[in-house]
Amino acid sequence: MKIICTRQNLIQGVSTAQRAVSAKNPLPILSGILLTAKDNRLEMHATDLEMGIQCIIPCNVQEEGSVVLPAKYLGDIVRRLPDCSIQFETTQGTNVVIRYGQSEITINGYQAEEFPTLPNIQGKNLLTLPEEELREYLRQILFAASQDENRPVFTGVLMEIFNQQIRLVATDTHRLALKEVKTKEEVSDINVIIPGKTLNELARVIGEADKEVTISLGDNQVIFGMEDTLLISRLIEGQFPNYRQVIPQGYKTRIRVKTKDFLEAVERASLLARVGTQIIRLNIEEEKIVISANTEVGKIHEEVPVYLQGEPMQIAFNALYLIDALRAVITENIYLDMSGPLSPGIIRPIKGEDYLSLVLPVRTV
Amino acid sequence: MKIICTRQNLIQGVSTAQRAVSAKNPLPILSGILLTAKDNRLEMHATDLEMGIQCIIPCNVQEEGSVVLPAKYLGDIVRRLPDCSIQFETTQGTNVVIRYGQSEITINGYQAEEFPTLPNIQGKNLLTLPEEELREYLRQILFAASQDENRPVFTGVLMEIFNQQIRLVATDTHRLALKEVKTKEEVSDINVIIPGKTLNELARVIGEADKEVTISLGDNQVIFGMEDTLLISRLIEGQFPNYRQVIPQGYKTRIRVKTKDFLEAVERASLLARVGTQIIRLNIEEEKIVISANTEVGKIHEEVPVYLQGEPMQIAFNALYLIDALRAVITENIYLDMSGPLSPGIIRPIKGEDYLSLVLPVRTV
Repeated sequence: MKIICTRQNLIQGVSTAQRAVSAKNPLPILSGILLTAKDNRLEMHATDLEMGIQCIIPCNVQEEGSVVLPAKYLGDIVRRLPDCSIQFETTQGTNVVIRYGQSEITINGYQAEEFPTLPNIQGKNLLTLPEEELREYLRQILFAASQDENRPVFTGVLMEIFNQQIRLVATDTHRLALKEVKTKEEVSDINVIIPGKTLNELARVIGEADKEVTISLGDNQVIFGMEDTLLISRLIEGQFPNYRQVIPQGYKTRIRVKTKDFLEAVERASLLARVGTQIIRLNIEEEKIVISANTEVGKIHEEVPVYLQGEPMQIAFNALYLIDALRAVITENIYLDMSGPLSPGIIRPIKGEDYLSLVLPVRTV
Repeated sequence: MKIICTRQNLIQGVSTAQRAVSAKNPLPILSGILLTAKDNRLEMHATDLEMGIQCIIPCNVQEEGSVVLPAKYLGDIVRRLPDCSIQFETTQGTNVVIRYGQSEITINGYQAEEFPTLPNIQGKNLLTLPEEELREYLRQILFAASQDENRPVFTGVLMEIFNQQIRLVATDTHRLALKEVKTKEEVSDINVIIPGKTLNELARVIGEADKEVTISLGDNQVIFGMEDTLLISRLIEGQFPNYRQVIPQGYKTRIRVKTKDFLEAVERASLLARVGTQIIRLNIEEEKIVISANTEVGKIHEEVPVYLQGEPMQIAFNALYLIDALRAVITENIYLDMSGPLSPGIIRPIKGEDYLSLVLPVRTV
């Protein structure tokens, strides 16, 4: 392998591929990035066997070939290279000399053949979405996915397509977020669970204006196709919980409140509640909501003006769950709908029926 | 105590005073800030018994008094308060109610009488320096002070005044940095060791343009006076090492090199050398310096053009020490003076005789 490319392209490619490298992978070769030079382009592949990223950068190929280089060293080095044209050349099998100006670095690599075979990245093209929009949808729901690997289904996000309507749902059983989007294209119905970790990495890679992501489904895997990058991930097997029955229809108490005022008051209450269990109490009255917490450090009494429909109510929540939910909303005002002190609270934007998030209350004596 | 003040003044005062609060202090009351309201101002005091900070903010005092509040909670809370006028009022002895808008937080505090008596902050006025200049001097030397508390003298910075010349010296025995400044005023000769930690905190507090710091000496203590802030610190007792005899007079080899090119090459070499002992080799030739390192990860060969006076030389350094020293220099070009592979290398700016830093070489087989 012998190629010449620019520092900027190298940084872009390595930084993207590096996202699929897991720090705690037991196979040494998976700490590396597979570089393949052919057809005047450099392909970079990395995988942790659950998720894989393929990234293509333009380069001048003087000799085709492939090699695996340790991702961490490669990343640190390319980011520190001077801004000149950079040559990579394999010598003595798996050693690669990186030449720049009058200087050179040799990194010891691995045989390309030892790198695990990549899954077939041909999938059935499902739909395309603008990058910026998809990233915003993900931001609005990913916080509700669980981090607990013991219950894999809850670490994933349900993607359900039915009647040209995409629905994304995440829940860790304490809270739930749901986003609906109408597709522009003709799309067949599906129902898959995508790992939250994959979608978190996707959200970091996408976001350029005027670009689109193509979503395809393969054999128990999902493929996100961007301009020069493919992100491939296994799907999570299992049955996503029946979220429909958790979402109350109607409400006994609805408040309309300024998102920012409510969020800031809950954040302050959380500062005091953190020495305890993060429990804060909401006392919903005719024209205001009183937020209170009482711990060994001190106590807080916050008043936020609201517009109430229905009955006054007393309810308690975990402050951190409320904060996550309120930060995910983008509208200036929200509704908080409640049906009783032991029923979930539902946060909805004032406008639009396409988003909601649900937080279970805390039972207090 | 009952006062009204602005959020901005509170944040400023608490953030400054908080710097003297040590996280690992065994006395619970020292995790607090002593607030004293009198004469239409609020004094804030904090100390870890080695260093103390006194900070004054303007406020409207409705009732004089004093109380100690936990620094961490106070800091987190004031930073999250809305931007309105804020009232502090003691209730039930040491509890303080913080009122803002329609809301309030009560924090449990401590008796002001339990707070350790502050040292006498009257010292003998020594000299004044512009804040920006002093901060820059500190940046240039503090990196060379030791972090090892077992040898206290090396964790400090020598401040020596002799013949209207201030000299600041720091060394951890592996490297040394020295800065000289001419005083504008008539100053008496002194020789004291100031804790590096104190000067690090000072460097974070100062830096405003057109403001000055007054340095005073008291009874085994030094006092830095800023506009609304005093920083008081004990001095380190003991004898600072005789640094003069460590600095070689003259050189056998002098190179003149671009600071940025040299620094970047050493930083790249350090990336590879970090799996080993951070040893990098310098091969100084007629028109270039070759920097190399060789570890299990790979090897590097960097060439940087230099202008050589004297003999070619081979020498090895700890890359991290060279990086610290090169980052502290501000001139575009430097001299690196050497007298042999086992003698220290001296880095000097091309212009000005008022600064140098010295790095001991590493003996290689």
